Amino acid sequence: MAKPKGSLGQLEELALQLAMLQKTLKPELRKPCNIVFCADHGIVEEHISQSPKEITYQVVYNMLNGGAGISFLCRQHQVDLKLVDVGVDYDFQAISGLKHRKIRRGTRNYLYEAAMTESELEEAIKIGEDCVSEVYEVGCNVISFGEMGITNTASSAILMSLICDLPLRDCVGRGSGLDDDGLEHRYQVLLKAIDGYQGSRNPEAVLAYFGGYEMVAAIGAMLRAAELGILILIDGFIMTVCLLLASRFNPTIMQYVIFSHQSDEAGHKHLLAYLKAKPLLSLGLRLGEGSGAICAYPLLCSAAMMMNEMASFEEAKLRKYFD
Amino acid sequence: MAKPKGSLGQLEELALQLAMLQKTLKPELRKPCNIVFCADHGIVEEHISQSPKEITYQVVYNMLNGGAGISFLCRQHQVDLKLVDVGVDYDFQAISGLKHRKIRRGTRNYLYEAAMTESELEEAIKIGEDCVSEVYEVGCNVISFGEMGITNTASSAILMSLICDLPLRDCVGRGSGLDDDGLEHRYQVLLKAIDGYQGSRNPEAVLAYFGGYEMVAAIGAMLRAAELGILILIDGFIMTVCLLLASRFNPTIMQYVIFSHQSDEAGHKHLLAYLKAKPLLSLGLRLGEGSGAICAYPLLCSAAMMMNEMASFEEAKLRKYFD
Repeated sequence: MAKPKGSLGQLEELALQLAMLQKTLKPELRKPCNIVFCADHGIVEEHISQSPKEITYQVVYNMLNGGAGISFLCRQHQVDLKLVDVGVDYDFQAISGLKHRKIRRGTRNYLYEAAMTESELEEAIKIGEDCVSEVYEVGCNVISFGEMGITNTASSAILMSLICDLPLRDCVGRGSGLDDDGLEHRYQVLLKAIDGYQGSRNPEAVLAYFGGYEMVAAIGAMLRAAELGILILIDGFIMTVCLLLASRFNPTIMQYVIFSHQSDEAGHKHLLAYLKAKPLLSLGLRLGEGSGAICAYPLLCSAAMMMNEMASFEEAKLRKYFD
Repeated sequence: MAKPKGSLGQLEELALQLAMLQKTLKPELRKPCNIVFCADHGIVEEHISQSPKEITYQVVYNMLNGGAGISFLCRQHQVDLKLVDVGVDYDFQAISGLKHRKIRRGTRNYLYEAAMTESELEEAIKIGEDCVSEVYEVGCNVISFGEMGITNTASSAILMSLICDLPLRDCVGRGSGLDDDGLEHRYQVLLKAIDGYQGSRNPEAVLAYFGGYEMVAAIGAMLRAAELGILILIDGFIMTVCLLLASRFNPTIMQYVIFSHQSDEAGHKHLLAYLKAKPLLSLGLRLGEGSGAICAYPLLCSAAMMMNEMASFEEAKLRKYFD
């Protein structure tokens, strides 16, 4: 290419990854899609979040109406937005744009019992897989995932702590805006939940006990995407925790992912360091819904355009001084 | 807005800046434009760059042909790309897309004499002003500037060192790819150039002695843009040095600028720290041409869309839990 070597920085790394994944020097991004999995968490009863559970279904409506953060971002970048109810504690009417795959009206409270049964976990994995298979069939080859579920940063913190063997303190953050007292209360509740856990440390057991349906669905979706060779844009904290779990089930998934954004949620920077990941953006977003991934999507398009539209030295008639 | 406060991070700061600048809650970005000023530098005779001077005109051709980095980025984001020859050491034929405002075939060698005369400096400022007035007249309210001129990172390093009173060592970098020996040679030449300089430290004098025509034109362009209330996206190292100079002529310019990208060129991070600026992106680009600014442009669009399209709490029928 007619430019000093390395002068397009991370765009060049992206282009290389794209080219290798698609096994072509002219990679293409087709039918980009962001799937948002939505569900509630039983632990919300312990008041460890700034927002009450009702926000989950209300934000689902807002996404459906096109007024949410992820709505305008997907419109801006022509990304297809799909919503899936995996376990929201609310009875949605038949609404166009929302896929109904509710497993249960929210998980159980993991302070006292496993959030989900083994068969529920399998069902959630299957839902994620199905969603990805569907978009793959209509030609999607680049995807991102988001979530909506009040208190899922807490669930993510526990999973991160147990799977990475990192201090819970480093994994817990303020979610949508806890103050210092709220953060300390959250920390103490989660510590108690971990202390009460008698099960094994294997990823599946930990996930069933502390996970959310929307998170397990995202894990299933990521695993299926990798199987199909779909490029996966990883959003913020919660989706990175889901990737962490997915990578325990299939380590080769890492070659299919691009880290899009370092979230403001406290645990994310530690988790990214643990995964040796350098995300494309660091804009201080902490909205969820896949918003970080979609903000990074145009950079992926730039990388693809670089491969397809940038002149070679020969075409540009530049002497090879840059080499 | 129907989201946790601060959850859209830097997009919210951008939106605020946009709204204040345009004095409306529904800001609009109209006719975005990237103007690339091109010129050669006399100091190139000292072999302090990886690339020879001929690359300047060859890259101008490549930009005109649509094969350069900035070409596809502008196409991707529907940004109008304008090229101005302010002093390239080459006789371009009449070519559509290139504005002919050549002052001289490159500056003089500042190791021995002033790069430009006072009247040349005034002419370059005027060229920049004219270019911005023109795009303003057709409705542009958001602009970025780029440059093409082999060795202009060296000129920028000296200007930064003298204006900020920072050690030259912190300001000098590898440009398009000098190795360690090349970098040391560049440093020694620039040190000698500074030692040989007898003039005053006032910004205008320093700029005339060490500047490039393309840089002075960019400074004139920035000053005019601020005068007209046009939002300015600041690209990488060279354009940040130009902003530094422009801010000495008109300090209020800082409210019109957005820092788009932290370049890989060594001096840039020190200069950004000096200006207390936190750019939107840090992708390791060092291509120039305005490429960092255009990569950041979609984030600016997101901020505008957020203001125009995101539901309020009332519209979303969300209770005000997020507040």
